[in-house]
Amino acid sequence: MKEFSIIGKGSKRVDASAKATGEALFTADLSLPRMLVGKVLRSSLAHARILNVDTSAAERLPGVRAIVTSADSTGEKWGVFRYTQDQAFLPADKVRFIGEEVAAVAAVDEETALEALDLIKVEYEELPAVFTVADALKPGAVLIHESNPGNINVHVHIEVGDVEKGFARSYHVREDTFAAPEESYFQAEPYAVVARFDNAGNLEIWMPNAGPHLKAKPLSNCLRMPLNKVRVRKITIGGAFGGRSEISPADVICSLLARKSGLPVKVAYTREENTIATRQAHSMTASIRTGVDREGRVLSRDITCYMDGGAYSSTGPIATSVPFLCMEQAYRMENVRYNGFRVFTNKPIRGMFRTHGRAFACGVDLQLDMIGEELGIDPVSMRLRNARRAGDHTPTRSFVPSCAMTETIERTAEQSRWSQKWGKLPPYHGIGIGCNSVQTGFPMGIRGGSSAFIKFNEDGGATVISGVVDNGQGNENMLVQIASEELGLLPEDIQLITADTEVTPSDPGSYSMCETFVGGNAVRLAAKDAKRKLFEVAARVLEAKPETLIAADRKIFVRGEPDRSIATARVIRMALGKGQSIAGEGSFWPKVDPRREWVDNPYGQLSETFSFGTVIAEVKVDPETGLVEVLETWASQDVGFALNPKVIEGQFEGGLTMGGQGGMLTEYHLWDGGRLLNPGQLEYRLPLAPDMPRINPIIVESDDPAGPYGAKEAGMSVAMSAAQAYVSAICNAIGAPIKEYPLTPDKILEAIEKKGGTGESLSKKKV
Amino acid sequence: MKEFSIIGKGSKRVDASAKATGEALFTADLSLPRMLVGKVLRSSLAHARILNVDTSAAERLPGVRAIVTSADSTGEKWGVFRYTQDQAFLPADKVRFIGEEVAAVAAVDEETALEALDLIKVEYEELPAVFTVADALKPGAVLIHESNPGNINVHVHIEVGDVEKGFARSYHVREDTFAAPEESYFQAEPYAVVARFDNAGNLEIWMPNAGPHLKAKPLSNCLRMPLNKVRVRKITIGGAFGGRSEISPADVICSLLARKSGLPVKVAYTREENTIATRQAHSMTASIRTGVDREGRVLSRDITCYMDGGAYSSTGPIATSVPFLCMEQAYRMENVRYNGFRVFTNKPIRGMFRTHGRAFACGVDLQLDMIGEELGIDPVSMRLRNARRAGDHTPTRSFVPSCAMTETIERTAEQSRWSQKWGKLPPYHGIGIGCNSVQTGFPMGIRGGSSAFIKFNEDGGATVISGVVDNGQGNENMLVQIASEELGLLPEDIQLITADTEVTPSDPGSYSMCETFVGGNAVRLAAKDAKRKLFEVAARVLEAKPETLIAADRKIFVRGEPDRSIATARVIRMALGKGQSIAGEGSFWPKVDPRREWVDNPYGQLSETFSFGTVIAEVKVDPETGLVEVLETWASQDVGFALNPKVIEGQFEGGLTMGGQGGMLTEYHLWDGGRLLNPGQLEYRLPLAPDMPRINPIIVESDDPAGPYGAKEAGMSVAMSAAQAYVSAICNAIGAPIKEYPLTPDKILEAIEKKGGTGESLSKKKV
Repeated sequence: MKEFSIIGKGSKRVDASAKATGEALFTADLSLPRMLVGKVLRSSLAHARILNVDTSAAERLPGVRAIVTSADSTGEKWGVFRYTQDQAFLPADKVRFIGEEVAAVAAVDEETALEALDLIKVEYEELPAVFTVADALKPGAVLIHESNPGNINVHVHIEVGDVEKGFARSYHVREDTFAAPEESYFQAEPYAVVARFDNAGNLEIWMPNAGPHLKAKPLSNCLRMPLNKVRVRKITIGGAFGGRSEISPADVICSLLARKSGLPVKVAYTREENTIATRQAHSMTASIRTGVDREGRVLSRDITCYMDGGAYSSTGPIATSVPFLCMEQAYRMENVRYNGFRVFTNKPIRGMFRTHGRAFACGVDLQLDMIGEELGIDPVSMRLRNARRAGDHTPTRSFVPSCAMTETIERTAEQSRWSQKWGKLPPYHGIGIGCNSVQTGFPMGIRGGSSAFIKFNEDGGATVISGVVDNGQGNENMLVQIASEELGLLPEDIQLITADTEVTPSDPGSYSMCETFVGGNAVRLAAKDAKRKLFEVAARVLEAKPETLIAADRKIFVRGEPDRSIATARVIRMALGKGQSIAGEGSFWPKVDPRREWVDNPYGQLSETFSFGTVIAEVKVDPETGLVEVLETWASQDVGFALNPKVIEGQFEGGLTMGGQGGMLTEYHLWDGGRLLNPGQLEYRLPLAPDMPRINPIIVESDDPAGPYGAKEAGMSVAMSAAQAYVSAICNAIGAPIKEYPLTPDKILEAIEKKGGTGESLSKKKV
Repeated sequence: MKEFSIIGKGSKRVDASAKATGEALFTADLSLPRMLVGKVLRSSLAHARILNVDTSAAERLPGVRAIVTSADSTGEKWGVFRYTQDQAFLPADKVRFIGEEVAAVAAVDEETALEALDLIKVEYEELPAVFTVADALKPGAVLIHESNPGNINVHVHIEVGDVEKGFARSYHVREDTFAAPEESYFQAEPYAVVARFDNAGNLEIWMPNAGPHLKAKPLSNCLRMPLNKVRVRKITIGGAFGGRSEISPADVICSLLARKSGLPVKVAYTREENTIATRQAHSMTASIRTGVDREGRVLSRDITCYMDGGAYSSTGPIATSVPFLCMEQAYRMENVRYNGFRVFTNKPIRGMFRTHGRAFACGVDLQLDMIGEELGIDPVSMRLRNARRAGDHTPTRSFVPSCAMTETIERTAEQSRWSQKWGKLPPYHGIGIGCNSVQTGFPMGIRGGSSAFIKFNEDGGATVISGVVDNGQGNENMLVQIASEELGLLPEDIQLITADTEVTPSDPGSYSMCETFVGGNAVRLAAKDAKRKLFEVAARVLEAKPETLIAADRKIFVRGEPDRSIATARVIRMALGKGQSIAGEGSFWPKVDPRREWVDNPYGQLSETFSFGTVIAEVKVDPETGLVEVLETWASQDVGFALNPKVIEGQFEGGLTMGGQGGMLTEYHLWDGGRLLNPGQLEYRLPLAPDMPRINPIIVESDDPAGPYGAKEAGMSVAMSAAQAYVSAICNAIGAPIKEYPLTPDKILEAIEKKGGTGESLSKKKV
């Protein structure tokens, strides 16, 4: 039994007060003296050659201070990997989607900037366009990028074991195809950038981000300026969900406007711009063929996925891989083939998303339900029989050091009284389960791990300096808790300096909830380093060996002798009095296989560790309207160790809301060709607090050997399991599977209507 | 012969562009959203009991957001030492000088704030007041502080050797008394403070300072809040000169107003407030009795000094000691007695000043001239015979590790063609010399030395994190040069983060030009630490031993094999690729005697090292008007090693302007009782650029064993020698000594008139 003072407790988040009172400033709240308003001119065509951009009339408009077009850009193209560098912010040759950036204006006020946009004349030569994966793949289809024949952007091919032999050995095989359109991340904060240059040519820039260093490096490339002159500044961030992991055209455009005008510039996206011009989630079709033995154990799987990537690569190789990788982590299998295709279309760009691939994940899980139905095995047993275990290797050869997947299934089943409910609920009532896993300590193509400094201050408090960013999930709180625990201080004794590239050492960024494992370990190591120096000084006073000392309650004790102690502040001052300041440094780099590549070599240790989640949902469907009422949910995750249960529960709630309630019931993009019809807050239906069911959080700990205090991540596995639980429960309620998402009333009514004929009744014999 | 790439060269200062273009923001330039204007109500009486402060009418004035009086203060009293804590900002009992802070208002604009001040009714009971040292010391004089009988604030008594025996052995003895009134530091930037509290109760504050940590600690005491909640922020600073070394009433008042109003507040002093309500230089009388042998070597000295300290202690013990300590460093002597008295009067508060004690320094030097005259020895020889040497101990037992005093005298004499001029100049032409020394690595009552972090960035550049502040002297430039030299980088590769208490580790502050020695050493040690780690990585690639490597030109070389090298950036990225980030830490604490106390035990190593300066001036006096024309000057200093000759020359120029041209010709405070008559820019006559003579800089290096690259300080010894050169030259020109300063035309004309009768003709037999 571990004994801790600070961690493991549900203490208030360090950022709670600033956020609750409105004190926290987001980028769009910033105002600098003489700051200009920047606005972006966007393509009205989905695919067209740019013949000419005439800004002369706009330049003459009083109040306009700078106009930038492709002529002002360096021409550097952006892509996360060398082989995906295809997006020139402000393209010179052609536009590839409606909403693409063509020019931008900085003016003294918004009205002038918008008026100037109207005065910019762009001459286009319209080209044929493709808006669906099917059309894009058709022979002879127009090429969106000359370099990509067949409009195929990424093809991830993974093959492990002998898939055909696996099917041959199977007792039962079935194949289904699942599909879902694009959805929006809908961060609470629309994208905004403030940029300014000083006389020495240093760029100071504020924007939402998933890692300031993740932004600074590509910005220095795209602007062709030294990295040390790009200073991404700390600012409060209102959500990321995978959508703030790359640089955005707005970062570059705002910087170009600031450089050209010589004044600070703010570009704040409207909600509609945020939806069209920042990354959003892919649409996907997933064909899944699964073979099982008599007991429902998966013997073989063959999956082919098509994702609509929109007009540019973005994080394509990652986004095309991750849905598969999560599933192969969650469930054991020996023989598996995966073909993932990301296809270019003339639509806005898609990126990594917190709940990667609902068509994929729902497909895998719902198919397990259907197979179970056919074999007479209930969904919980199907999952328990296939669940990943600690000590396993995944098909792509990642060792799994800790895993409590089984416990999350068992405990959600127990608490939801699954066995009393399964097959026994009244008509149109249903219960369902979903599981998934996340790789929570891996590099996303960024060099180097996370490093942190800690310095003790004269009053006995400490300052933590770390590159970790908090975009809402509680990373700051986590760093404070780790540092105060390790140093034997209280959270209020810790000063936190984070997420500013000028001050903080490198950090790979906050994605896949990696920062507890990566950044948290770095801070813990830095704290240990500082504590070691502290103990050396204290040992002399206490006449004890340093290795017998412990730090707690702002004191240093001899272990087991509570009376032999000295105040930490006194030790610091004694050291200072001799000219020694107590400080520490720590670096952490997750152990992964450096030879692994997303496309060329997708084998080897992907992440140093993984988290695992299970969600169970109980629902009621109105057979007249097709409306779903979610009665109750149970969300469980193997978090390794719960550094702060309250923060984790908050993440469970957010994850279930996004992945299940929104992602499975109401959220999808609606298109007219390449034009998005529902980019705004009124048309795109997000779940609100009153829509939410009761969520019962079940925290499971597996004590990861490398996690800080055993911790992994807090909530992403729940987010990624929620959609499956919802679809499983709804299909159970109506007694029929649905393979297209989200489960809007029309689809539910249609399924109820068609039900009799399908033979796929999913344990609702009574319906 | 040392070989350096970056240091030792006259490169452009890193802050030049921002200051030349006006981009640099000073505190008064800051503007925060919803910021209020703070104004201070000051006492109109020099000494009075406060009976009542009625703020009710002011509180009712629309636009007033907060009013603070002594009732809002914590009552904590300020003083640099425990035994000098006598100033309650916003005193409750009585006011002690005209201009003392009684109450303050924060309002929406300046007009409203000033109107509110008028509405505050203060009831006083006026008390008798004393305005001169003589009056304050009179038996029965009113006591300004009950705790200080006789109004004596500080009495420093130093006695070494046998002074009476020394006089008895002397060939010649003379005694003189010298005097000078107060003078103003007249920083280019008047004092200003911006303060705000966040919801978590953290104070963020900007103000001119000589060390952010020097401000944060007393502020946390005076506001009774934890040190880690006080964040003194970095800001450009327009001069300090000793006058920004303590917290100011404005710091506390502005914080109290911000706390009470819940909004940011700016208090920006007018020029007049800056002169009355921030520290200024002491007035002084110095009686000096000196005995010498036949060759002019000083055998004994007895000095009694009285300084008018104004109403509170401030840095009294230091200011009372330093004039003596500088002199005992500059000149050898075996037997010496010093009695320094700082006396309270009902006048504004006096503090440490860059050119400590013109009456004292001029007295010592001019008396040497007079004694030389009497013995037939010229001033240069007098100084050479008494000059301090390396390896000496000072009377108060400081070891002097490096000293090129003799070389500064010889080289200024040579370059000024002294021997061709002395005694041979036409009537009313004169030449004179002054010497002094500064303790340039010592603690001012602050615990701990300077610490610095350095981290290497992915692009091969580095970030330096240090608590050192730059208040105009070029400290930032010095840190950048040291770091780039040590790391083998270019100055533009160095990012500097300084002078913010949240980010930077502790630093004792920038006074007596200590930061080259203290902070510079810390940065050099941090760079060495980082370089050691860098070399470990590079050694593996270069297949060489780490100790054979050198860093230069952004590369790492095997010494003597220019072809065996690797780019520093590549080494960094290799290390990062393995999860190791290269960073270093360094701390430096000058070796001084920790038992030494300013008053109780003024013996022992005061400073780890000392700098030494000589100034020679050539002047022409108009016997009709008494006006002085300074024809040319020669300024020389033992700087240890010239890190940047251009910066040093700039400091020589500033020092000579302040100490000589201003301090000896035009600057002084003029009083009507306790009311200062010339606080403003029109009445207080500062020298301007066209007033200045040619200044010939002569940099002398002594390669200090502990200084960074051998460096000490840059310019303060020149500043402290200039007044003596001026007075020596003017007295030589008119053939008569003058013992009251500054040398305004009336004093010069009077001396010329009286000359015949004095017998003190100072080698102007021809006049």
